[in-house]
Parts: sequence; C-alpha cells; structure tokens
Amino acid sequence: MPQMMNAFVMPEVGKTAVTQKPIPEPGPEEAVVRTTAALICTSDVHTVKGALPVAPGVTLGHEAVGVVHALGSAVEGFTEGQRVAVNAVTPCFRCEYCQSGFTSQCGGPLGGYRYTAQVDGNMAEYFVVPAAKGNLAPIPDELSDEKAAYCCDMLSTGFMGAEHARIGLGETVAVFAQGPVGLSATIGANLLGAGRVIAVESRPERQELARRFGADDVVDFTHGDAVEQIMDLTGGVGVDAAIEAFGFPQTFEACVRVTKAGGRVSNIGYHGENPEPLTLPLDAFGLGMADKSIHTGLCPGGNTRMARLFQLLLSGRVDPTPMTTHRFGFDDIETAFSMMQDKTDGIVKPLITFA
Amino acid sequence: MPQMMNAFVMPEVGKTAVTQKPIPEPGPEEAVVRTTAALICTSDVHTVKGALPVAPGVTLGHEAVGVVHALGSAVEGFTEGQRVAVNAVTPCFRCEYCQSGFTSQCGGPLGGYRYTAQVDGNMAEYFVVPAAKGNLAPIPDELSDEKAAYCCDMLSTGFMGAEHARIGLGETVAVFAQGPVGLSATIGANLLGAGRVIAVESRPERQELARRFGADDVVDFTHGDAVEQIMDLTGGVGVDAAIEAFGFPQTFEACVRVTKAGGRVSNIGYHGENPEPLTLPLDAFGLGMADKSIHTGLCPGGNTRMARLFQLLLSGRVDPTPMTTHRFGFDDIETAFSMMQDKTDGIVKPLITFA
Amino acid sequence: MPQMMNAFVMPEVGKTAVTQKPIPEPGPEEAVVRTTAALICTSDVHTVKGALPVAPGVTLGHEAVGVVHALGSAVEGFTEGQRVAVNAVTPCFRCEYCQSGFTSQCGGPLGGYRYTAQVDGNMAEYFVVPAAKGNLAPIPDELSDEKAAYCCDMLSTGFMGAEHARIGLGETVAVFAQGPVGLSATIGANLLGAGRVIAVESRPERQELARRFGADDVVDFTHGDAVEQIMDLTGGVGVDAAIEAFGFPQTFEACVRVTKAGGRVSNIGYHGENPEPLTLPLDAFGLGMADKSIHTGLCPGGNTRMARLFQLLLSGRVDPTPMTTHRFGFDDIETAFSMMQDKTDGIVKPLITFA
Amino acid sequence: MPQMMNAFVMPEVGKTAVTQKPIPEPGPEEAVVRTTAALICTSDVHTVKGALPVAPGVTLGHEAVGVVHALGSAVEGFTEGQRVAVNAVTPCFRCEYCQSGFTSQCGGPLGGYRYTAQVDGNMAEYFVVPAAKGNLAPIPDELSDEKAAYCCDMLSTGFMGAEHARIGLGETVAVFAQGPVGLSATIGANLLGAGRVIAVESRPERQELARRFGADDVVDFTHGDAVEQIMDLTGGVGVDAAIEAFGFPQTFEACVRVTKAGGRVSNIGYHGENPEPLTLPLDAFGLGMADKSIHTGLCPGGNTRMARLFQLLLSGRVDPTPMTTHRFGFDDIETAFSMMQDKTDGIVKPLITFA
Repeated sequence: MPQMMNAFVMPEVGKTAVTQKPIPEPGPEEAVVRTTAALICTSDVHTVKGALPVAPGVTLGHEAVGVVHALGSAVEGFTEGQRVAVNAVTPCFRCEYCQSGFTSQCGGPLGGYRYTAQVDGNMAEYFVVPAAKGNLAPIPDELSDEKAAYCCDMLSTGFMGAEHARIGLGETVAVFAQGPVGLSATIGANLLGAGRVIAVESRPERQELARRFGADDVVDFTHGDAVEQIMDLTGGVGVDAAIEAFGFPQTFEACVRVTKAGGRVSNIGYHGENPEPLTLPLDAFGLGMADKSIHTGLCPGGNTRMARLFQLLLSGRVDPTPMTTHRFGFDDIETAFSMMQDKTDGIVKPLITFA
Repeated sequence: MPQMMNAFVMPEVGKTAVTQKPIPEPGPEEAVVRTTAALICTSDVHTVKGALPVAPGVTLGHEAVGVVHALGSAVEGFTEGQRVAVNAVTPCFRCEYCQSGFTSQCGGPLGGYRYTAQVDGNMAEYFVVPAAKGNLAPIPDELSDEKAAYCCDMLSTGFMGAEHARIGLGETVAVFAQGPVGLSATIGANLLGAGRVIAVESRPERQELARRFGADDVVDFTHGDAVEQIMDLTGGVGVDAAIEAFGFPQTFEACVRVTKAGGRVSNIGYHGENPEPLTLPLDAFGLGMADKSIHTGLCPGGNTRMARLFQLLLSGRVDPTPMTTHRFGFDDIETAFSMMQDKTDGIVKPLITFA
Repeated sequence: MPQMMNAFVMPEVGKTAVTQKPIPEPGPEEAVVRTTAALICTSDVHTVKGALPVAPGVTLGHEAVGVVHALGSAVEGFTEGQRVAVNAVTPCFRCEYCQSGFTSQCGGPLGGYRYTAQVDGNMAEYFVVPAAKGNLAPIPDELSDEKAAYCCDMLSTGFMGAEHARIGLGETVAVFAQGPVGLSATIGANLLGAGRVIAVESRPERQELARRFGADDVVDFTHGDAVEQIMDLTGGVGVDAAIEAFGFPQTFEACVRVTKAGGRVSNIGYHGENPEPLTLPLDAFGLGMADKSIHTGLCPGGNTRMARLFQLLLSGRVDPTPMTTHRFGFDDIETAFSMMQDKTDGIVKPLITFA
Repeated sequence: MPQMMNAFVMPEVGKTAVTQKPIPEPGPEEAVVRTTAALICTSDVHTVKGALPVAPGVTLGHEAVGVVHALGSAVEGFTEGQRVAVNAVTPCFRCEYCQSGFTSQCGGPLGGYRYTAQVDGNMAEYFVVPAAKGNLAPIPDELSDEKAAYCCDMLSTGFMGAEHARIGLGETVAVFAQGPVGLSATIGANLLGAGRVIAVESRPERQELARRFGADDVVDFTHGDAVEQIMDLTGGVGVDAAIEAFGFPQTFEACVRVTKAGGRVSNIGYHGENPEPLTLPLDAFGLGMADKSIHTGLCPGGNTRMARLFQLLLSGRVDPTPMTTHRFGFDDIETAFSMMQDKTDGIVKPLITFA
C-alpha cells in the first residue's frame, strides 16, 4: 500500500478541500520533492473560480520549495535531502517550442504551466518534478525557503515583464497594478535600468510597497484617470514602456495609451477572468504605424533562471519578503486561501509552511 | 515673380486637381528636386477620402524620384543635376524619437511622414527635401527611375514588415493581402530567410504576382476562412509570423489567430479607414501569456536605407517592376489617380513620368 | 553475443581503419540509427592529424542520416524505420548552457559536439543519438538523404555564420574561403538579406560554386592582397560584415581589417590547426572603440533547427548538392577520406552511401 | 576685433599651456556654450603623450557643461543662458554611420569624437557645439553641474560597457580596472541587472569606490593572477561577461579567459598607448567556436542619451560624485592636469570650475 500525504485540492469548481493522496513516485527523468514552504497565488483563486478547465480533485499550487525526496533512475547531479525550489513552469526543454526559446510554451500555448493545469499542483506534502535535470533548482544554504519561493513565479514573472519591456537605460516605465507580480515588475524595472518608475495602484499598503521597491511616482486611479495622470507626470509625452499586471481590457488599453511612439507594452496580467477581447484604440496605437510593440509571456522556468534569481537575492540586491503579509501552517491552508479569495486584511502574499 | 510649376493637389476632401504653385526654394539644410518619376500610393486615396486631416490645397504624393534642382546653403556632398530618390519619410534625424531609433516617428507619432501630412507632397514638378544630407538618396547610374521609386515607400515598408516579423531561418510566414506593400512583404520575407511564405489574396493577378515574388502557397479567402486554410496548410500548428498588409480589424485578428505560441504579428496595414479598434481575441492571444508579440511601424526613411535597397535592386536580387501595371505621363495624373481609387483594370501600381 | 557492425575509426593519431564494433543499444532517452548516408568533414581530417584529443579507436564522423533502428524506453513520438537525420551537435537541452541558449556549448565549451570528441562518431553502420526527443530529425519524404545530410553540419554552421553576422537588409558581406562551410555561409548571407556578397577563394571550381550560390564578386587572394581588393571593391569603405570560414590567424585578421566601423566579424573557421593566437590589429580594430564586434559559434543542433533547414531545401530555396563532387560506397570510405585529406581531384564534399 | 577667451591647449606633443583664443561664433546649425564646469579625462593625458595625431595648439578637453552663449540661425528650441551639457561625442546624426545606429562613428571610425581630435576641445571658457539640436542637453534645475559633467563621457562610456556586455538578469560580470570609466561600468552592471559584480583593482581608494558602487567582490591583481582569482570565485566556471576598462592587451586577454562559453567581452579601454595587437588565446577563445563574442564602442552621445542619464542622477539611482577626489578653478588647470598625468594623491577625477 502506498504511503499517503495531504494535498490541497479542488474537488469541483468553486470548492477546495484538503484530502489524502498517495505520495507520488518519480519516473526515470523525474524527481519527487517533499514540500517545506509554498506561496498561494491568485492564479489558483482564478482556477477555483473556473477560469481553467482542470481535472476534478486536482491538487492546487505552483510556488513551492522543499527537499529532494526521491530521484528518477536517469536523474544525475542531485542528492536526496537537498534543498530545492521548482518554478511554476516546468518545461521539457526539448520540444519545438522549447528549442525555439519559448520554454513556457512547452508543447504548445502555455504548455509549460503543468501544475494544476495538467498534473497535480504542489500545495501538497510531496510533488513531482518533470525533467528534473532542468527543473530542480538547488537553494543556496544562505537563502531562506521564503525568499526562494518568491522565485517560483512572482519574481520570475514580474522580472519577465520588465525584460519584455526592453527598457533602455534611464527610460520611464509605468507599471499598472501593484499586486505581487506588479510589485515584482516594479523591482524588475529598477533592476533593468529604468530612470523613472510610475506605479499605478489604489490600495495604500500596496502603494507603500511600490515605493519601497523603487517606484518614483504612485498614481492612484481612484483620484482621477490613470492615463491622464501619467501623461501629466510625463509632460504630455507618455512613457517608454508600460507593464500590464492587472489583467483587464481597460488596463491593457491604458498601457497602449500611455506609451509614446516607439514604446513597448509588456503584458504579465492574466486575462482569463474577463471574456471580452483586448482592444487597441486606433489613435493611441498610431493606426498601427507608431512603432509601438506589444509583448506577452508566461513565467520563465528552468533551474538556470532560478539560480540567477537566487543570486539577486543572495547578494542583497532584491528582497521580496516585505510582500509576505501573512504566514500560516499547512494546517491552515483553507483559511489562507479564503483570505486570498477575498483579499482581506491587506493580504498581499501568504507564506505556507509545512511541518 | 516666382517661377511656377504644376502640382497635383487636394482642394478639399473628396476632390483632386492639378494646379499651379511656385517652384519652392530650399532652406539652408534643404534641397529642391525636379521630379522625373513618381508612383501613386493608395495612402493618397485614403487621404483624399478624408482619412488624414490635411491643409486644403496641399500637394499629394510621397513616392518620387528626380534630379537635384537646388541645394540649401548648408548642404554638402551633392551636386545639382544629380539623380536622386527621396523616401516617403524624411526624418530630421536629431530629435528625441530619431535619436531613439524611431526616425519614422520624428518629432512624435508618425511625424516623419511629412509629405502631404505636414507639407506639400511630391506629386508635382518640384518638391522640397528636408534634412537633405540624410534624405537625398543618389540613384546609381545603372538603376532606372522606376526601380528607384519603388524604394520610396513600397519596398521600404514591405521589407520593414518582414524585418519586424523577426523571421528565423526557415520559418513559416503568412502575409495577409497582396497589394503593392503586401507583395513587398512577400519579397521581404523571402529576403530574410523564410522557409515558407503563405500569401492571402483573392484577386488572380495579385495571386500571380505573389507566386512570382516567392509565395509558396496562396490562400484565397473567398474560398473559405483564411485562418482555417492556413491552419490546415500548417498541420494545425500555425505560422511563426504573420504580416498584416490590409488594414482591417478582421485581418489583424486573423494574424493573431494564425500565429503559434511565440509568434510575431507585424503590422504594415494602414488602419485609418475603419474607425473600430483592433481586437485581440483572448484565446488566440493566449490570455496575454503565449509569448506572442505585435510589432508596428511606418516606412523607414533615410538615404542609408535607400542605398541598401538600391543595392538589392542593382544586384538583381529584387525586381519590383512587375507591379507596374500601368504607365502615365503627369498630364494624365487624374486618370491614373481615379483608377487607383476604383482599382479598375487590375491596377496594382501606376508609374507617372514627368516630361 | 552482440551483433556486430563496421565502423570507420581512428586507431591512433595519423591512422584510420575500418573495424568491427558491436551494434550499440539505446539508453532510456536515446535512439540508435542505422546509417544510410553520410558526408565526410574536414574536421575529421583535423582530428586524425591530432587536433582533438580523442580516445584511441573512436569512430569518426558526425554528418549522417539513416533510419531509426531502436528507441530508448522513454522516447516517444518516433517509430522504428523512420528516416531521420542527426545534427553533428547533439545537446542535452537541459544544462545551464543549453538553458542559456548556447546548446552547442552543452555542459561547457564545445560540449554539444559529442560524436568522435566524446563518444563514437557516426561514420559507422549504426550510431547512438542522445536526447533523442530533441535530436532525431524526421526527414520529409520528398527530401533525399543527400540533401538532408548537408543540414547535419555544413548548412547549419554556414548559416550560423551569416546569422551571427547580423546582416542588415542590403548590406555587403565578405566570406573568406569557399570550402563547404564557406559556401554555405555564402548561401546563408543571401538567405538573410545581403545586398552584395564578396567571396574570397582561389580554386576555380570553388569560385564557380561561390558564384552559383550567390556571390556577386569573387576575390582571388593569389592575385593580390584580399583586404586591398575588398577595399577597392567597396570604394575604400569596407564591408558591413565579414565571415571567417578558413581558420587561420591571417584570415581572421583580414576580416577585422575589411569591416567598416560598426561592422561584425563572424567566425566559423576552425582554429585548431594553427597554435598561434588570433590577433586584432589596433588600427583596424579602432583601438577597441570602433563599434566592431566579433562573434563565434559552433554548429547549431536540435531537430527544430533541422526541420527549418529541411524546409529551405524542400521549398527549393536552397540546394547544396552541387557541392557533392564525389560519391562512394562505405566500402570505399578510406579512399574517400584520403582524398579529403589531400584535397585531390577538386574534391569539395564526398557523399558516402551505406548498403 | 573678436573677444578673447582662455583655453587649455597642447602646443606640441608633451606640452600643455593656457593661451588666448577668440571666442568662437556658431555656424547655422551650431551653438556656442560658455563653460561653467569640466572634468579632466585621462584620454587627454594620452593625447598629450602623442597617442592621437592632433593639430598643434588644439584645445584639450571634452567633458564640459555650461550655459548657452550663442545659437546658430537654424537652431530652435533652446535659449541663451540655458544650462546645458554636451557629450564628448557630437554626431551629425545624418551620415551613413549615424543612420546605421553608430553615431559615435559619425563619418567613419571614431569620427563622432570631434573635440581635440578634429576641432578645438572644450577645456576653454567657450566652445562650439555642432548639430546643436541633437547635441545640446538641457540640465534640469535640480541637477548640479558636477553631476551633469559625469554624463559627458564617464557614465555614458561606462554604462555602454555594461550595455554591450548584454547582461542577463542575475548574471555575473567582471570589470577590469576601476578608474572612472571602470567604476562607471561597475555602476552600469548593477543598473542593468547583474547578480554579481567582480571588480579588478589594486589601489585601495579605487577598491573602496568599487564596493561603494556595487562591486560584490574585489580582486587585487597584485595578490595573484586575476584570472585565477576570478575562476576561483566562480567555482572554476568563469563569468557571463567581462568588461575591459584598462586598455592593455593582457587585460583584454584576461577578459577572454575569464568568460565562460557563451560569454561576452565588452571593451571600453582605450588601446592607443600600447602598440601591440590584442590577442585572442585559442584555448580560451574555444578555437573560435565557443559562442563568445567581443563588443567595442565609443562614448554614446546625443542629448536623448544625456537626458536619460540625467534622469538616473535626478532620481537618486546614480551618484558619481564620490569619484570627484579633487576640485580646482580653471586658473589651476595645469596643476590639475599634471596630477592626472602622474595620478598623484589618489586622484580619480578632478572637477574644474570656471569663474
């Protein structure tokens, strides 16, 4: 009889539960990790609302760290007991999309996002890691589980938003919405040479975090049209790049509006909640001739990416932990998830620790 | 009293006329060119329909070649009588946008497009060339006026469409619409390493030109949905890049639909005729996470660009003249323009020669 | 007892032989291919001269096509009997270097080049393919073994030379030496938008091939200094990019000399024969400030690259077979190899077919 | 009779003097600036040693700020009395090289570097600014002359060194030599996302500055071979990119040696003092096949670049003033220059102010 573990699952749309599942065993190229800490992502809230067609009873979660529990027969270079993090995206690295440099699209659109979407997620006491050679990221001794966990999705996605914005040294960047991914984009814009970062956010505690993470200006859209405020702040010229971290057509359109000719819109918002198409207003889009460009993407995975993110944390250049507003044991996962659903008590990111 | 010349003008929206204007004189950094040949562009048709707010009586035209008639006091390196072409876009090269590499956005959105939009166009016996040092492009002796004229807009714009598509060697590219700019994009996709070019077009004579210019497949959207046909041709996978050379929201959306994850949409269509915004369907756009990108731009100008285009013609790698379906003297400019408005007699591109 | 096969090996430096080895068996992620055709590469000549430290008795060869003989237990998506080609470089796709986009440097410098260097090569009746999912390239029915074999190294390497030269549309490119890789670079420069290609070569039959493959000018260095001739051909200005396909310090230096400020030198020559360091002359290198850049690389592998190269052949855009000057059965491999060593009878590339 | 001004000139190789020259007058596209502050550059020391062939009596200096004294007839958008900085490189923006994006190579190799090399420099009470529209950079009120002056060469060059290193987020970068340009590269590597910066320097005060500007490790080459120390620090792997800010063949070679496969060497050192060619050791250069690349360049100019650098200073992200070790009035220019020649008293960068 297999040994059992606890897993936080979605029995059906709109429901969650903690249930028992067998501890998984690794295939030849896989590993199994025993979870020590995890973060809850708003994507899981979307999933439970029904945004993603998933198998009933699938385990939720995709931001977890732990220790190597078992290694597949073909996996070399790791040892059981080693501390590791695993990115939310776990590519095969070998398909056409991976070879073309789009590892997040492994096998097809969004295909690198396996946890919950295709297989059991990792808000559980144990989880499987595909293509372990490329996806197991050893955590340096000096790095806490908490910090490492931020690399699994938040920092990798937010920084990608800034990378896709192709920021020139000293350029001005607007970041729409300062949830954990938007905050990470604010950090990322600073890491990549922005001369000015304008954050759009209305909640005071997130405005405060935005400033702490390097925003020069904070625009509160409850105090007036965000586009107008940004145009005013930039002398009517607009920004060089805008990062969409909210996931709504209006915000996306605002990004197009605030960028100057030659500007870049970088999308990291998840547009799965609102069924309307995104729109590009003709005037702001320069009739399709203003040298504006739009870039999209999904959390870059792989342990090489993870190692570089770890280095940014280790050296003290980045510290995302001020985003951790709440801490729970895995026993309280349902309370934590419920708070993320309702965004109560100023919650930004809750850390879940496993006994 | 100034010497007078004939100019083809737009007295008001919906009207055209040939009228007399003074032969212009160059400012210190300008030149004046005596026109020898020109091409009519469908953009001018749009302008006459009222798509662009222009001064009443403005001269039309932006694809002209000629000989240097007069040089401003500060212009060195050219001689009167020298054969030259001038791109539709004439940047200053020195403003913020030009220094940032967006010379077509000189001074602001679409600002490098001066002829007709800001100053008199060049469908006239003489015309002014701003920033002559960078905008007068000497025509090599071996190159005909006709070939050189294609570099002023058609080839430069169409090739930009292919450049912005960032085609990897051997990749598959779809080009929507095979008017002169779309045909130029088809040539361009071949010049830049495409392994397969799928052209979308319904008119037989343009389909024929598309094949002649290197299209491997021609999709006729009157025989079924173009998106479906392209998906079928690519085994359900889609293309690496799609070039929009039509200027309609449906075509733009089709470009998003036919590109695979990681694909690029490159817009060269003029979206000034249709007031509806462009839309990005969420599924095809991968909820904003499929690593798709969208690129836009406006005809790249400058005599360095022109010299490189000339070299492609001189060496025989490119010959756009099969697009010249009709030839007229400037005396017949109104007939020619009327045919372009109605697209009669299978017209693709009419060449206008000046006595 | 294992079944045996014939293999063309290097018993010691300076010697070659055909010997019997066991037919290999695939590991879980590997495949074994039965060879049907192969090309001999001058790299193997270098290896036999002692340029590379290899195991005594190692099998030579790295440009082979065949049919799938056996598949490892974890390999999906292929069938036994399927026609396949395998690139000279067979990355794991999962190590740090592969994840960073440098798959040819898999595991470390030049590490993706496994055949002969690390394991048995494929000038044998059967050979092993590591990471089969990413390295087995199905050959389309319409494509001959001969054409497919050119993708294993010659075209992939030569085209990379042109890709690394970052050729702008219509730019001028010099390609030094017109052996099979240099000829492939000449094809590649044309594929990627060059407006003028200047080939440097002294042997008449290779000059002829260069012209056939798109060289506009051929410079014969036995008729005068190649640098001077290229400067003359370009009006004293030099070229935008130079590709080194010879592998000597003098040629490399000439590439630096003929490029204009802002120019790129792309190296594809193998510099393992000559022990002297490459040198960058200070004047031509602009004292390190002329915006010149130097790029290097090793044959890009992977079946996605291969599929794109196949598409260029299938569509008729590229046909490398005029390089096949000689054809032999595997029985005559030693004769063929000896001719490649001495470059007799105008040999460019000999095709070896297996019974 | 023209009004006279004082200028710091080089009467002949090895000599300097302060002499009287007429206050210059601007041509139509030029401006004349009255100098208020300037920095002395070691390049001028090289020039006085004879490294650059210059006209006898030419004025030295190329890092100056001031106020607009006179504007040419064709210059719009500026006012007399306005505070401005002017980059060491003053491109025309319109020649072939400028249009190709290589504005520092305006007109040909290193041609954008006009001051002292082609015309009088700006270590004088007044100086001429060519192509004023693109080269006059208004200084924001809140920005001191001193800070602005660092943008004229030091920061623009040092940051270019980091830009050319194409640093991926979290990558490791070595910067060889921590003079003012090397220190600026250290700042730049941090601005552009490096996860670890290793500075090579032996002088304690420069080591201290390097740490202050973000170096994680400082390697002292007087304590052992720098290459070995860097390999040790990186676990034998080497760095992703190395920046040469010293200008010697040995340092350049060390940069090649410490970069891993796929790594970039970015040169900002001036190699005009040592007549030997730079060398690329074959093993470290991977026989020309290790995907290493080498990039070079010269201080990027233009007021758009300057405005972005100003923004980095204004926002507090960058403060180069700790490099200002000494301050002099223009009366003491010869003392200051002499100290720069001999590098006495721990001098890094002396600021010269004008009455």
